[in-house]
Amino acid sequence: MNIHELVAELRENNDSKIVLVVADGLGGLPLEAGGKTELETARTPHLDTCARDGVCGLSLPVLPGITPGSGPGHLALFGYDPLEHKIGRGILEALGIGFQIDPKKDVAVRGNFVTLENGLIKDRRAGRPTTDRCKAMVAKMRQVKIPGVEAFVEPVKEHRFVVVFRGEGLGDKVNDTDPQTTGVPPLVAEGGDEPSRKTARIANEFVAQVGKILKDDAPTNGATLRGFARYPKIGTMQEVYGLKAAAIAVYPMYRGLAKLVGMDILDAGDTLQTQVARLQEAWGRYDFFFLHYKYTDSTGEDGTFGKKVEMIEKLDAAIPAMLSLKPDVFIVTGDHSTPSKLKSHSWHPVPTLLKADTARTDGVTEFGESSCLRGGLGQFEAKYLMLLAMAHAKRFGKYGA
Amino acid sequence: MNIHELVAELRENNDSKIVLVVADGLGGLPLEAGGKTELETARTPHLDTCARDGVCGLSLPVLPGITPGSGPGHLALFGYDPLEHKIGRGILEALGIGFQIDPKKDVAVRGNFVTLENGLIKDRRAGRPTTDRCKAMVAKMRQVKIPGVEAFVEPVKEHRFVVVFRGEGLGDKVNDTDPQTTGVPPLVAEGGDEPSRKTARIANEFVAQVGKILKDDAPTNGATLRGFARYPKIGTMQEVYGLKAAAIAVYPMYRGLAKLVGMDILDAGDTLQTQVARLQEAWGRYDFFFLHYKYTDSTGEDGTFGKKVEMIEKLDAAIPAMLSLKPDVFIVTGDHSTPSKLKSHSWHPVPTLLKADTARTDGVTEFGESSCLRGGLGQFEAKYLMLLAMAHAKRFGKYGA
Repeated sequence: MNIHELVAELRENNDSKIVLVVADGLGGLPLEAGGKTELETARTPHLDTCARDGVCGLSLPVLPGITPGSGPGHLALFGYDPLEHKIGRGILEALGIGFQIDPKKDVAVRGNFVTLENGLIKDRRAGRPTTDRCKAMVAKMRQVKIPGVEAFVEPVKEHRFVVVFRGEGLGDKVNDTDPQTTGVPPLVAEGGDEPSRKTARIANEFVAQVGKILKDDAPTNGATLRGFARYPKIGTMQEVYGLKAAAIAVYPMYRGLAKLVGMDILDAGDTLQTQVARLQEAWGRYDFFFLHYKYTDSTGEDGTFGKKVEMIEKLDAAIPAMLSLKPDVFIVTGDHSTPSKLKSHSWHPVPTLLKADTARTDGVTEFGESSCLRGGLGQFEAKYLMLLAMAHAKRFGKYGA
Repeated sequence: MNIHELVAELRENNDSKIVLVVADGLGGLPLEAGGKTELETARTPHLDTCARDGVCGLSLPVLPGITPGSGPGHLALFGYDPLEHKIGRGILEALGIGFQIDPKKDVAVRGNFVTLENGLIKDRRAGRPTTDRCKAMVAKMRQVKIPGVEAFVEPVKEHRFVVVFRGEGLGDKVNDTDPQTTGVPPLVAEGGDEPSRKTARIANEFVAQVGKILKDDAPTNGATLRGFARYPKIGTMQEVYGLKAAAIAVYPMYRGLAKLVGMDILDAGDTLQTQVARLQEAWGRYDFFFLHYKYTDSTGEDGTFGKKVEMIEKLDAAIPAMLSLKPDVFIVTGDHSTPSKLKSHSWHPVPTLLKADTARTDGVTEFGESSCLRGGLGQFEAKYLMLLAMAHAKRFGKYGA
């Protein structure tokens, strides 16, 4: 029996409320051996009180040593096994720019501008053009016309763009056309089954037309395509957990991931204050709230230890307003670690706290990596967090008599 | 390779002895945040000495957040994956009243008395009759005669009874006849395969005859049937672990669960003292002893914190007599938590100690939830406890060369 079958057997409805605050990339590292992490350095009186009253632990986003992207990191926190439910690259890229995917008709693809010389790839990233140039090239590419299908092209950043093919019966078993090397021509797209052969023909036609349109635009005079993907079939949080769920996220990627599991996407504004105001306003209408806080990750990615500390302190200051709503279960965690020391996502376990009347005291009085190590939740796989949330929300019956 | 395949490959015989003491519902919660649990409040000098000399940890009966019933809780401790081996409701109910199931012929079913009015269910629990009335109605129901099959009817409590159909070729893929609502007639039993269709016909005949027999006995003038179940096929502890195992349990449910995995059921008397006397008397005849102590659970279910503390202290007082037998491996744990604060089973991890010459010191000097959190066994799934027991009993060879 897998987790979701078990949940289906046990779940019960009540009017409890669960708040999941995801501080993106929350976990960190000390800059020097024996030092403190960003979270341990930050003054976080409100999070510390939650840690004291609740139960803490360290979440393993996927498995020990595995660094997740935002997709698997969030799916796990939403209670979906990230090794079982995979989101294709093209779809993630489209979610990241807030593209409204049609789950039934769309195949989303990542595109790279490349530099071609005599039909051979000279630069796989077209000399890393500016994002403005990327936008200008994308505007030109919108001239592409393919009978029987719509092709939406959207800029991402520098040499990267997204193309979404919308039509009937399109498959996504299509190879990348990026040969991962230079001095050779782009690969031809081929399909692994009949629907995917249709997509492949469309993709090859798209690349051919782009080649003509951009022929005088060197170094951005060609394109390769990667990560062909349809929208994944995932049970909604309502279907799986019986929860009416809402997302309050400023950035498109996280709204997209929430939508993937059927959450309603609420207008989050663009600050933590507008997010909290939305939480208060929508309080009566949902069972579960996902509130996403980006800046713990972006400051980590920038490698700015002090800024990350500051962003954690800002989050801490917003905690009392969330708690004033008296959630039955209040969780603060991250989708992965982003230590400023590494300037990137990492595999390190993520500090997690769960506050509920049914939490067992564990002696932890500060919210930090070292203290969470001694917490009552131990080190646990992130995919189990929703089981704990459901249990503390008293939304589970007994397994077996 | 699953656990049992691994065990089959590694197990070796010797004359070591393992004692598994299950204090039912042992784990608890403090009444107030930061307080002590029942186990932490109790004075337990003998258990504390075991904790100091042995190794401690916290057992997760099924998975994080999952509250088990007695069935899955015990199966896990006996070394059977509780998500893989399921025990049907009817069988559990029959085990709970000590009914002697014939594994080859019986289908066991839970029954409810209901109140019928013009053929429609008016009350799904027949106004919760007294257990005496339940017994009187059951006595009348024993008049039911069905050709080719024996029907054993036994009272449970209030509106609940058990019926066991004994015959050749009976299946258990039969729907519940309880429609889970009122104002409608009971459902007709239907079978999902040929053997189950035979059972369904018998069940419908049973209900029809009961309707006639009880027609003047409103509010207990009808019956619904639920949880049709055959005895599950489970390898015995002898087959799986190579252990000659005995159960010393006062209550029928736990004797039934032990029998399910092939343990010999010893006469336990009705106190902890008679249980320990039986352990001493039978010491030479078995490799493995399961001693079940009920009162840590029943006092938790009653919500009487002080009584649960007292029952833990009584168990502690019996420890020296068990240790005087010098078991090679001595384990004290629970099948789940039953915090008096919640008056019910819960999902919280269960304090566990293992004493053996090969235990690695972990600095734990008291047996309690917080201290076990820092124990050498960490937090572990209960289904792995038997692997540890076997290892410390030196009953496992090396895996691989």
